[in-house]
Amino acid sequence: MNATVLSIGTELLFGQIVNTNAAYISQNLQLLGINVMYHNTVGDNPARLRETLEKAIEETDLVITTGGLGPTQDDLTKEIICETMGFELEFHEPSMEIMRNLFDKLGREMTENNIKQAYLPKGGHPFTNHVGTAPGFAVEKNGKIVMAFPGPPRELKYLFEKYAIPYLENVSDSVIRYKILRLFGIGESSLETALEDLINDQTDPTIATYAKEGEVAIRIASKRKTAKEADQAVSDMIDKVHKIVGKHIYSDDDVDLNETVGRKLIENNITLASAESCTGGMFAKRITDVAGISKVYNRGFVTYTNESKSEEIGVSPETLEKYGAVSEETALEMAEGVRLTSGTDMGISVTGIAGPDGGTEEKPVGLCYIAVSFGGENVVRKVMTRDRGRLWNRNYFCFAMLGFINDVIDEKYKK
Amino acid sequence: MNATVLSIGTELLFGQIVNTNAAYISQNLQLLGINVMYHNTVGDNPARLRETLEKAIEETDLVITTGGLGPTQDDLTKEIICETMGFELEFHEPSMEIMRNLFDKLGREMTENNIKQAYLPKGGHPFTNHVGTAPGFAVEKNGKIVMAFPGPPRELKYLFEKYAIPYLENVSDSVIRYKILRLFGIGESSLETALEDLINDQTDPTIATYAKEGEVAIRIASKRKTAKEADQAVSDMIDKVHKIVGKHIYSDDDVDLNETVGRKLIENNITLASAESCTGGMFAKRITDVAGISKVYNRGFVTYTNESKSEEIGVSPETLEKYGAVSEETALEMAEGVRLTSGTDMGISVTGIAGPDGGTEEKPVGLCYIAVSFGGENVVRKVMTRDRGRLWNRNYFCFAMLGFINDVIDEKYKK
Repeated sequence: MNATVLSIGTELLFGQIVNTNAAYISQNLQLLGINVMYHNTVGDNPARLRETLEKAIEETDLVITTGGLGPTQDDLTKEIICETMGFELEFHEPSMEIMRNLFDKLGREMTENNIKQAYLPKGGHPFTNHVGTAPGFAVEKNGKIVMAFPGPPRELKYLFEKYAIPYLENVSDSVIRYKILRLFGIGESSLETALEDLINDQTDPTIATYAKEGEVAIRIASKRKTAKEADQAVSDMIDKVHKIVGKHIYSDDDVDLNETVGRKLIENNITLASAESCTGGMFAKRITDVAGISKVYNRGFVTYTNESKSEEIGVSPETLEKYGAVSEETALEMAEGVRLTSGTDMGISVTGIAGPDGGTEEKPVGLCYIAVSFGGENVVRKVMTRDRGRLWNRNYFCFAMLGFINDVIDEKYKK
Repeated sequence: MNATVLSIGTELLFGQIVNTNAAYISQNLQLLGINVMYHNTVGDNPARLRETLEKAIEETDLVITTGGLGPTQDDLTKEIICETMGFELEFHEPSMEIMRNLFDKLGREMTENNIKQAYLPKGGHPFTNHVGTAPGFAVEKNGKIVMAFPGPPRELKYLFEKYAIPYLENVSDSVIRYKILRLFGIGESSLETALEDLINDQTDPTIATYAKEGEVAIRIASKRKTAKEADQAVSDMIDKVHKIVGKHIYSDDDVDLNETVGRKLIENNITLASAESCTGGMFAKRITDVAGISKVYNRGFVTYTNESKSEEIGVSPETLEKYGAVSEETALEMAEGVRLTSGTDMGISVTGIAGPDGGTEEKPVGLCYIAVSFGGENVVRKVMTRDRGRLWNRNYFCFAMLGFINDVIDEKYKK
């Protein structure tokens, strides 16, 4: 099955918003085994919309539109799809009911033009919208399918997952299931090399690797007759991948590293304090992004100067003098010092060179030392990233801190 | 003049990357007074590319392509544009020279297929690429212009600004100049209301407002015969806007708030220490994003628990007991305490409720107190944002801290 993604909205042609919807839909269609041939965008212009839609229906089996379903006069997607596909609009009470409730809740008067949104193609499949006012729909005729979704990404995603995926699975007589594994501490090319045999042999499940900022992900997808078979195939492949690169995998469910680490700290009731130099509070920010972390995260220090390292967390001036601020020794004293100062179970520290200045041949930009003080032990890691700019380096160091804590907890409690 | 933006690349149709190039080009064309009628995306498929290109040339005066200029067999954009527009390819020595130097620098052997990239349309305008290997170009015939750019956004931007903008300014016989003002502490709708008369009267310069995460921006653009006239018109309008909402404007040059504040601290040699509760290190992270900030940023505390507020920066347990951690009184003691502890010129503090939990009727999620201790004075602000989720709230609080410092410095040194 071939598809066109047709985005409608003058704001896209002005470049006021980036078309993330087209990418979202395309990713999902690819997972459903549907080939996307074109992305087209037109403004709120009836003639150009009609012509583009006609061409898309002619050239591909499935056309997915976003935008132009709202209450204003500009919003003509529904009317033009109905004209082109030969459907009539009829009143859809459930959609009206949802709108009435929404306006009641907001304490606002529903204006006349909102009623327009409750009309849907007669003989089509309504996609009732519980997260916004404009419903979507599908119409099918002569082997062609047109699906229409509202433009706001949140509403599109809700309706696409709730209606379009089952609908298209049904049409295609198969089911797709996938999982995303997240990894840290391995580059994309090393990962591909490690998984080479699995990737080369793939028919189903398929395996794809993705580079993210500072980390990598693996998507494992299976298309089978039943959900059970697809789930099993994905799960079997996950086991195989774990056997090869398991030590780098921190989530089988596309959960962020800070969330993964935050949950482990909370579950195991490990109190934590942090001392950061080069990351300047980024670690503390990340770990406190996790809701409920106040149960275990006690305090953090951004010890940007040498004096603050000594005054706040007891790094000895001799160590700083002898080994320098960026050294194993300083990192270790920082981690133990912050744990003792704060009275927590665990202390984590980082000291390094984020750039753009401050690098030397011996200690270049991209180098940091990370230490963890926990369970009577102080351990340190040297972390080196290719310098890709201050922000990137800091982000990488922060990942390495979270990854270190993850490993320390896993070692103690699980593996 | 009407335009089509034609993006080429199978990775776009797979949804592997979001098409930010189309938005970037569209924004710039709009500023040049050129109407974008269509965005089209096709994969690396010669037949569909040819057909889509022919249609675009037929329907619009200007076609801008991105992608498909690389060294591989898939990359056919140049060949198909030449066929369609009736041009031949010829060897372009300056582009070859750049590639040779690049490969030398990387210490890598240049493969045969790279030479393909140094061929450009004879009689066209080469867009020599100094930031990548694939040059772009423009060809013009029978009143139609086709411009081709490589896909990587960094290369596209470099070439578009260096070649396409002057080229199109020249074609359109006018010059566009614009500035982006950044504001904090005013919402988009209040801003629009305040500028209503200017916005309603606009012909040239044009004024547009944009909501960003936690802040707003104003774009002022003028299209005139000469750059001097356009610059003057923009500058005059900036003065008018300053008279109305000047107290909220922190940059006339699209500079971030953390960068703006960081530079002012460095310029005026004001040393700073921070104490954060609800923002959990986000402020410290933001201020240390600024390169060179180590000259003035001394240290930071993430005092997440009550004990840490007392132990590290001397907030009295009685204050915490009597007024609570989220109070004017606590914020003030934190700001003064962190300044005294750190021996800096300025101390800044924040304490508030970021959510999702912890809110009460009296102190709801979205409330924080921010205090600054500087020049013998301790001042506090109550900041309240509509709760839009933990991440949003923390970001807003952080903006408010930066905005507060900005105001304090301006008051002392400038205004």
